[in-house]
Amino acid sequence: MIVNMSEGASEEQITHIIERIREAGYQPHVTRGTTRTIVAAVGSGRRHEIEALQVAPGVDNVVAIAQPFKLVSRQVRPHRTAVRVGDVEIGGDDVVVIAGPCSVESREQLVSTAHAVKKAGASLLRGGAYKPRTSPYDFQGLGEEALKILREASEETGMPVVTEVMGTEDVELICEYADMLQVGARNMQNFSLLRKLATVRKPVLLKRGPSATVKEWLLAAEYLLSGGNHDVVLCERGIKTFETETRNTIDLAAIALARDLSHLPVIADPSHGTGKQSLIAAVSRAAVAVGADGLIIEVHPCPERALSDGPQSLDFAAFEKVMRGLSAPLRGIAGAAREGITVPA
Amino acid sequence: MIVNMSEGASEEQITHIIERIREAGYQPHVTRGTTRTIVAAVGSGRRHEIEALQVAPGVDNVVAIAQPFKLVSRQVRPHRTAVRVGDVEIGGDDVVVIAGPCSVESREQLVSTAHAVKKAGASLLRGGAYKPRTSPYDFQGLGEEALKILREASEETGMPVVTEVMGTEDVELICEYADMLQVGARNMQNFSLLRKLATVRKPVLLKRGPSATVKEWLLAAEYLLSGGNHDVVLCERGIKTFETETRNTIDLAAIALARDLSHLPVIADPSHGTGKQSLIAAVSRAAVAVGADGLIIEVHPCPERALSDGPQSLDFAAFEKVMRGLSAPLRGIAGAAREGITVPA
Amino acid sequence: MIVNMSEGASEEQITHIIERIREAGYQPHVTRGTTRTIVAAVGSGRRHEIEALQVAPGVDNVVAIAQPFKLVSRQVRPHRTAVRVGDVEIGGDDVVVIAGPCSVESREQLVSTAHAVKKAGASLLRGGAYKPRTSPYDFQGLGEEALKILREASEETGMPVVTEVMGTEDVELICEYADMLQVGARNMQNFSLLRKLATVRKPVLLKRGPSATVKEWLLAAEYLLSGGNHDVVLCERGIKTFETETRNTIDLAAIALARDLSHLPVIADPSHGTGKQSLIAAVSRAAVAVGADGLIIEVHPCPERALSDGPQSLDFAAFEKVMRGLSAPLRGIAGAAREGITVPA
Amino acid sequence: MIVNMSEGASEEQITHIIERIREAGYQPHVTRGTTRTIVAAVGSGRRHEIEALQVAPGVDNVVAIAQPFKLVSRQVRPHRTAVRVGDVEIGGDDVVVIAGPCSVESREQLVSTAHAVKKAGASLLRGGAYKPRTSPYDFQGLGEEALKILREASEETGMPVVTEVMGTEDVELICEYADMLQVGARNMQNFSLLRKLATVRKPVLLKRGPSATVKEWLLAAEYLLSGGNHDVVLCERGIKTFETETRNTIDLAAIALARDLSHLPVIADPSHGTGKQSLIAAVSRAAVAVGADGLIIEVHPCPERALSDGPQSLDFAAFEKVMRGLSAPLRGIAGAAREGITVPA
Repeated sequence: MIVNMSEGASEEQITHIIERIREAGYQPHVTRGTTRTIVAAVGSGRRHEIEALQVAPGVDNVVAIAQPFKLVSRQVRPHRTAVRVGDVEIGGDDVVVIAGPCSVESREQLVSTAHAVKKAGASLLRGGAYKPRTSPYDFQGLGEEALKILREASEETGMPVVTEVMGTEDVELICEYADMLQVGARNMQNFSLLRKLATVRKPVLLKRGPSATVKEWLLAAEYLLSGGNHDVVLCERGIKTFETETRNTIDLAAIALARDLSHLPVIADPSHGTGKQSLIAAVSRAAVAVGADGLIIEVHPCPERALSDGPQSLDFAAFEKVMRGLSAPLRGIAGAAREGITVPA
Repeated sequence: MIVNMSEGASEEQITHIIERIREAGYQPHVTRGTTRTIVAAVGSGRRHEIEALQVAPGVDNVVAIAQPFKLVSRQVRPHRTAVRVGDVEIGGDDVVVIAGPCSVESREQLVSTAHAVKKAGASLLRGGAYKPRTSPYDFQGLGEEALKILREASEETGMPVVTEVMGTEDVELICEYADMLQVGARNMQNFSLLRKLATVRKPVLLKRGPSATVKEWLLAAEYLLSGGNHDVVLCERGIKTFETETRNTIDLAAIALARDLSHLPVIADPSHGTGKQSLIAAVSRAAVAVGADGLIIEVHPCPERALSDGPQSLDFAAFEKVMRGLSAPLRGIAGAAREGITVPA
Repeated sequence: MIVNMSEGASEEQITHIIERIREAGYQPHVTRGTTRTIVAAVGSGRRHEIEALQVAPGVDNVVAIAQPFKLVSRQVRPHRTAVRVGDVEIGGDDVVVIAGPCSVESREQLVSTAHAVKKAGASLLRGGAYKPRTSPYDFQGLGEEALKILREASEETGMPVVTEVMGTEDVELICEYADMLQVGARNMQNFSLLRKLATVRKPVLLKRGPSATVKEWLLAAEYLLSGGNHDVVLCERGIKTFETETRNTIDLAAIALARDLSHLPVIADPSHGTGKQSLIAAVSRAAVAVGADGLIIEVHPCPERALSDGPQSLDFAAFEKVMRGLSAPLRGIAGAAREGITVPA
Repeated sequence: MIVNMSEGASEEQITHIIERIREAGYQPHVTRGTTRTIVAAVGSGRRHEIEALQVAPGVDNVVAIAQPFKLVSRQVRPHRTAVRVGDVEIGGDDVVVIAGPCSVESREQLVSTAHAVKKAGASLLRGGAYKPRTSPYDFQGLGEEALKILREASEETGMPVVTEVMGTEDVELICEYADMLQVGARNMQNFSLLRKLATVRKPVLLKRGPSATVKEWLLAAEYLLSGGNHDVVLCERGIKTFETETRNTIDLAAIALARDLSHLPVIADPSHGTGKQSLIAAVSRAAVAVGADGLIIEVHPCPERALSDGPQSLDFAAFEKVMRGLSAPLRGIAGAAREGITVPA
């Protein structure tokens, strides 16, 4: 931490900062420039006490040097982590595709989708039971009934299932049915939920919040790891910007960046990332090319009849085409991007 | 709802849309232009079924005409709502000021602050017991101990207290101690929490999410009203933009807009809205001038020793100065802004 | 400038940085922490050479301490600047209102508007001759004809006129007719234009760009001052964010911030800042309350027939009402905001 | 165009709108719903007159249906355009790589870079002669001297050169030396410059503005095409968002979207798009995978000594590695992305 004194700071003010740095458990190192003085806090102490000095008299600003996250960082763990979900490994050699409908609407809808996406090369099944909807008047999900249908579909196809958990009160129930729990983008900083999920023995898919920086996203993951759950997969799904032609702006560079900063696997969600059927094939290819460990894609038997997210859902034929578009060519790029992986054939 | 067909749409595709509009419970009205056809869905039916037509063949896009919220809107309730918290009324004739520390740190800290802010003209006391912190390594609040201290301070000063609730599991406990429950910005779309709070008999202070549009904010309030809790106060606290010199960008026009669209009271949070002590006086004046029904301001006995939000907290003298800056002159502006109100003297 | 070495930086790498700092004209001061080393560049040298060290081996990042602007800053000139336009002073004791149509459409339209806004209390007349339009198919302005009409209206009413200059090739001509030259938001970083305007003897109204930080805005002004033109008025007109209900998000806190950082006058544009007639009165009051030295407001005899910006233009009656809403009450707030000013009656 | 009347609109107000639609050259078609009426403007008339009705009494809002651009759209020209620069074709079968330093600093610097990038597979040489810099105190480019050096380097290597033009006054001179003229991001809506460039017989590289939507970007290109210059290449270089870890947020989905909406070639700028050496290889791969027709990459003999953009510039070895990473694997993906292209070997 570095405390930059303002230009006219008095000796008394500088002395005060030096004392406060010592109080906070750090050693102060003073550098006197021609117009201003800086005081570094060296060693390890109570970080927030230095941050608060920002408002001490004579201080211009306080700058943090070290990254604020620990367990998720590659400095602590240089090698990449792979997360197992059932017998599927995310972050290993293969690009893993998770597919399924936005919401579970009926047994028939889910099971037919499960078979279709499996045949096309998907490894995990997604489906919403509890749905976070902007309006209280929109379809809110079938709840436990949906969880049972997910379980059935999983047993019939052999695919592990991932579903969203919206609140701490649902965690236990969902753990009985699902193989992986998803934290939705708007819950990325629901710290009660994160603390609860830190204690369960299920892998977590942590979506990036629509206004979260990469650092805030990694700190949300840090809640899970520091609470005891190391099986975390990050998911980039687009951020909120001024562009309205796409539902969100998918930040593909953030996938490469998150993989530089952290050892955790990172996947991409081209469905929410674009909100547009027509862009999903291209963005899926790009996500794999940038180094994503997987994709999560919304598929529905008849998107124009979907109870949620129809405009961004693919029908079976379109999904199969996306998968074909990924498989052959990516064998090459995957090599460049991820040093020796294979792609679902 | 209006379905815009694309330029080359076939008769068959247009017919399909007409049928689907009928299926969804609306009446279809067709307008044929020189290059394209539009089909309006008239009456009231199942909105999402029309939205999903966006991906039907031959459709260019679907446009919604009516606002998606109901109970919060001025169309449903043209007169402004006032919300009582203890014996204080928010949304009535007076501009109400809520003040106190970001976090409750000790009995002494809170009680001294309570007395100071009351003396300066504040009507409600704020203080965090459960803190949403970006990093798991930051101070997370004193929990129930803080709630007890808040209650004591309230009894000693006669000021009702407002404190944040982070998860459904804490709602019951907090209701025992607090007079008003705050939903933090990052929980604005925590729909589990909103649904729970819709069932309690305490007023709710609903902060706007950092990436929420005004419409999404009003729809979050709609969760509370449609679930049975009509005592909702909205709070603008800044949105996330590219500007880094301030912690957030406070969107003061959104206060005027929210008051145009909704009958609910709207207050401003200049502390989080700017993140900077030096801007709080000016932004407080502006918020009242734009029509805010109140302000929520962070105050700490010694900001440079605060366990959270020090850089944006005022000490007692600075808070008193802000209040003096508001009182006299605003008598006039309040008249212009809000037709006949008084400001705390 | 501070160079933060990465954790594993070698002695050789640290030595290299020390040498490079000397080469750039600074003195190096080294602080060795427990896990990392920082090297401060003290004195005054070639800043960009230190910035470029960001990519030197063993460097984590480079942090600038001092503000990058000089002549516009209050450190160089602590007292506020007032800018004269004809016999009107912006940045003096009075809040100055600039009003008029978005585009000059005809002699009659402009002259009637000029008389109306003058009567209501405006001091300067605005009107576009050369219009920056998103689409090439939209009305592009009447050019020199509009300039002549502006001059006539100025002579008839005694109000100085301000009009936008879009390119260097128009500067000379516009200088013959206008009293103040406006740089539009989308030209804020048109450095060719700024360099040209630095050489003319007319005051410049510099709008903030839709994606410019306050620092970038002040650096754009620095182009004008460092090139010799000190008569610069800043204008906040809203930034581009995800909110679509308003045309832009007006950043009123930035007005207070710009006045803290710079001695230049700062005015607000509630017309572009909101894009909505219904919000202009409230936002105008708030802008004055936050400390703005003036306002620029679009007025048109019949907004629904305006060739540009109709939705945000006020008719004469609405403008007069806004002015009445400002005058009486603001006498008070202006006192608080700006220490002893008067408002147009 | 559709005019949505508000709920309580009177018959008189509806009649007024119907008349105004006729006046504007359209035919009005009225649809009366249960709670509100909509009036469609059918045919082709004066669009802005309908837009302005937004503020007519009884109108809720006005919605545009057709896209506002024409000549750049695929509706007007369904087949992709290829743009020739010297003997290089952008938008044809090959992914074209443009490389070179941010600024031309010396003959030796440019010529050595030109040879290096050519050897690694680049087809065009970039280099700045006139530099748009945020601060007036930063290096502003060598001007005509740089143009001469660019010409020499072009003759020595056979590579056509592209360089930025900042103002209309420089267009003629730059046309003498350069093969392609670049419009920088901050000049994307410098309409004076666009109008001038519409009249020259040189291809233009049009960067997307940091706060421009895809539609605004295409409308900027429309200025060039409608003015007579059809040789336009679009370049996505990142938009401004709240994320500060990267210099900009590169919007790769916008490349796929722009190629859906327009027939013009689209390339990507991973250097400005990320601002970080370490992300350029991954983002380059992703850009090609999403369908980009080319890349523009900053290369410098010694980035830590660059006079501008050092942190995002690659040295020769790093650039060569990026190119190797692109070549082999992309043969496959290019096939999927762009149906039959080859990549520089």
